[in-house]
Amino acid sequence: MTGPFLVRLAFDDEGSPAGHYPADPSVPQLSVLDLAATRGDGVFETISLGTGHLQALEAHLARFAHSAEMLDLPAPDLAHWRAAIREVAAHLSDADEAFVKIVLTRGVEGGAGAHSVPAQGPGALIPTGWALAAVAPDHTPARRDGIRIVLLDRGYRHDVARTSPWLLAGAKTLSYAVNRGAFREAARRGADDTLWVSSDGFLLEGAVSNLILKRGTTLLTPRTDQGILAGTTQADIFDWAGSHGYAGEYALLTVDDLRGADAAWLVSSGRHAAPIRAVDGDEYPVDRLLTTEINEYLHARTG
Amino acid sequence: MTGPFLVRLAFDDEGSPAGHYPADPSVPQLSVLDLAATRGDGVFETISLGTGHLQALEAHLARFAHSAEMLDLPAPDLAHWRAAIREVAAHLSDADEAFVKIVLTRGVEGGAGAHSVPAQGPGALIPTGWALAAVAPDHTPARRDGIRIVLLDRGYRHDVARTSPWLLAGAKTLSYAVNRGAFREAARRGADDTLWVSSDGFLLEGAVSNLILKRGTTLLTPRTDQGILAGTTQADIFDWAGSHGYAGEYALLTVDDLRGADAAWLVSSGRHAAPIRAVDGDEYPVDRLLTTEINEYLHARTG
Repeated sequence: MTGPFLVRLAFDDEGSPAGHYPADPSVPQLSVLDLAATRGDGVFETISLGTGHLQALEAHLARFAHSAEMLDLPAPDLAHWRAAIREVAAHLSDADEAFVKIVLTRGVEGGAGAHSVPAQGPGALIPTGWALAAVAPDHTPARRDGIRIVLLDRGYRHDVARTSPWLLAGAKTLSYAVNRGAFREAARRGADDTLWVSSDGFLLEGAVSNLILKRGTTLLTPRTDQGILAGTTQADIFDWAGSHGYAGEYALLTVDDLRGADAAWLVSSGRHAAPIRAVDGDEYPVDRLLTTEINEYLHARTG
Repeated sequence: MTGPFLVRLAFDDEGSPAGHYPADPSVPQLSVLDLAATRGDGVFETISLGTGHLQALEAHLARFAHSAEMLDLPAPDLAHWRAAIREVAAHLSDADEAFVKIVLTRGVEGGAGAHSVPAQGPGALIPTGWALAAVAPDHTPARRDGIRIVLLDRGYRHDVARTSPWLLAGAKTLSYAVNRGAFREAARRGADDTLWVSSDGFLLEGAVSNLILKRGTTLLTPRTDQGILAGTTQADIFDWAGSHGYAGEYALLTVDDLRGADAAWLVSSGRHAAPIRAVDGDEYPVDRLLTTEINEYLHARTG
C-alpha cells in the first residue's frame, strides 16, 4: 500500500478538537463552499517522513500555529494535530521517504459573501482540517545533479513583513498560485526552480524552499524578518553544521553574495538539499561532497 | 427554494468539455488533492443575477478566460460555461438579487509534489469546474449608508504587471488569502473595506471591488495596467455615464486625487456602488443622488 492515506480532524460546534478519523482520499471530501477551495484561506505544512520518523515535527507544528495566527485562524490544538499526523504516518512507516501534509482551512462559507469577513469567536466558522500521507516523489536527480534556478523579482521590499503585515508575507497559506506560477516561469526559461529577490535587491527564498549559501566555512541564509518562511530544514542543517566545522549565519544577502559564494542550495522538507548548478543560465559551482553529507544527515534524522 | 444550487462541469480525459450536470452543494464535491484546495490554483468570477438577468455575463467570461491564460490554465470553452451558468441561474430567476460564482481549477494533483509543475497539453491534469448560484446577501446598508475604508499598501509598484507578470497581478485567482486579510485589517481599524495603494503611491482597487472617483462631471478610475482587475461593473457604469452627462476616464490616481474628489465609490458585481463615507477615519462626502441613480441602473441591467 503506497497511499495516499487520509485522516480528517473533527471539530465540535465551537471549533474545539473532537478527535480524528480515517477517510478515503479517492472520494470527494470537501465542500465547494470550503474557503480553502474558494479563497485559498487556510494554512499548511509538509512534514517529511524518513523510514518512519516524522522529521522536524515540532518545528513544523510551531510554524503551522504561527501561520494560523497571522491569518487570524483559531489556534490549532497541537495535540489534536499530532495524534492525526501520527495515525496517518503509521501507514507509511516502512517507506524510505514519504511525507505528511497537514491543512487547516477557515471552514465552509455561509451566505456572507465576498464583502465581509467571518466572525471570530462565538458564531465563527468551524475549521476544516486534514492530514494526508503519501510516498515522496523521487528527488534523486535534483539532489545528485543539482537544479537550475532563475532569479525572479517578488515585487515586495525586504521589509514588507514589518511595514505591511496584512500581505501575510511569511505565512504558509493555501494561496500558492504565485508560487506555482514561479515554477512555470522557471520552466519557460529552461530552469527547474526560482529564487525570489525583493524589489530592493535582497535574496529571499525559493518558491517552496529556503536558500543556503556556503562562503568558506560559513553557511548563510537570508534573515527571516524579510517576509519569508523560517525554514525547518535550513534550521536542522544549521544545527548539524555547528558540529561539522561550519558556522551558520542569518544575513541580508544580495545577488552579489550569491555570485560570489562557493556553493548554494535550495533546501526543503521533501527535496532536502538541492545544489544549485546554474543561475539564470550561467553555470554555478556545486559542492558534491557537502551536498551528500547534508542529505545523508537529513535523511537519517529521527525527529 | 433559495439555494445554493450547484452545476458541475464535466471534462473528458483530454480536458475537453463533456457537458454539465446538477450536483448537491451540501455534500462534499472536491478531492483534498484538488489544487484549488491545496494551492489556490485556479480562477473564478462572480456574476450578478438581477431578476433573472445575468449581468455583464460576457465581460465576466472574457475576464475569466484572461485570468485562465495568465495562469497557463487550459482556455475555458465559453459555450460550455455559458450552458452551465444558465442552467444553475434558472433556479433563481425569481430572486431580486442573486449571483452565480464560477470556478475553474487546475485539477486533482497526482504524486508530482511541490517542486514541479503539471504538464501542459497531453498528459495534463483534468480541470475541475463548477457554477454555484445563491441569493445575494443584503447589500442595502452599504449602498445606502456608505462604507468606511482604510488605505493599505499593497506592496507592489504600480507597474508590477509589466515588470513581473509571474506575480499574476490582475488575474482573478483562488489565492485570495491576502484579499481576506485586507478585510480583517479594515475591521481591526473600525472600517468596512480596503483600498489598495501601490508601494509608489498610486490608488489601485478595493479588495474585491474597483474604485471610481467623481470630479465635477468626470468619473475617474485607476488605469487597468497597474496590476488590477478590469472592473465589469465599473465598465458598465462608464457606459451609463456617457449618456448621463458624465465622462469616464482611466487615470493614474494618487491619494491626493481621492482627498480632492467630490465623491467616491467602491463598485463590484454583488454590492454594486457602495459610496465611501470615511477614509482612514476621516469623514468623506457622499453623493446620495448619483449613488441611487447608478445603483438603480445597475440593478435594472438585463445583460
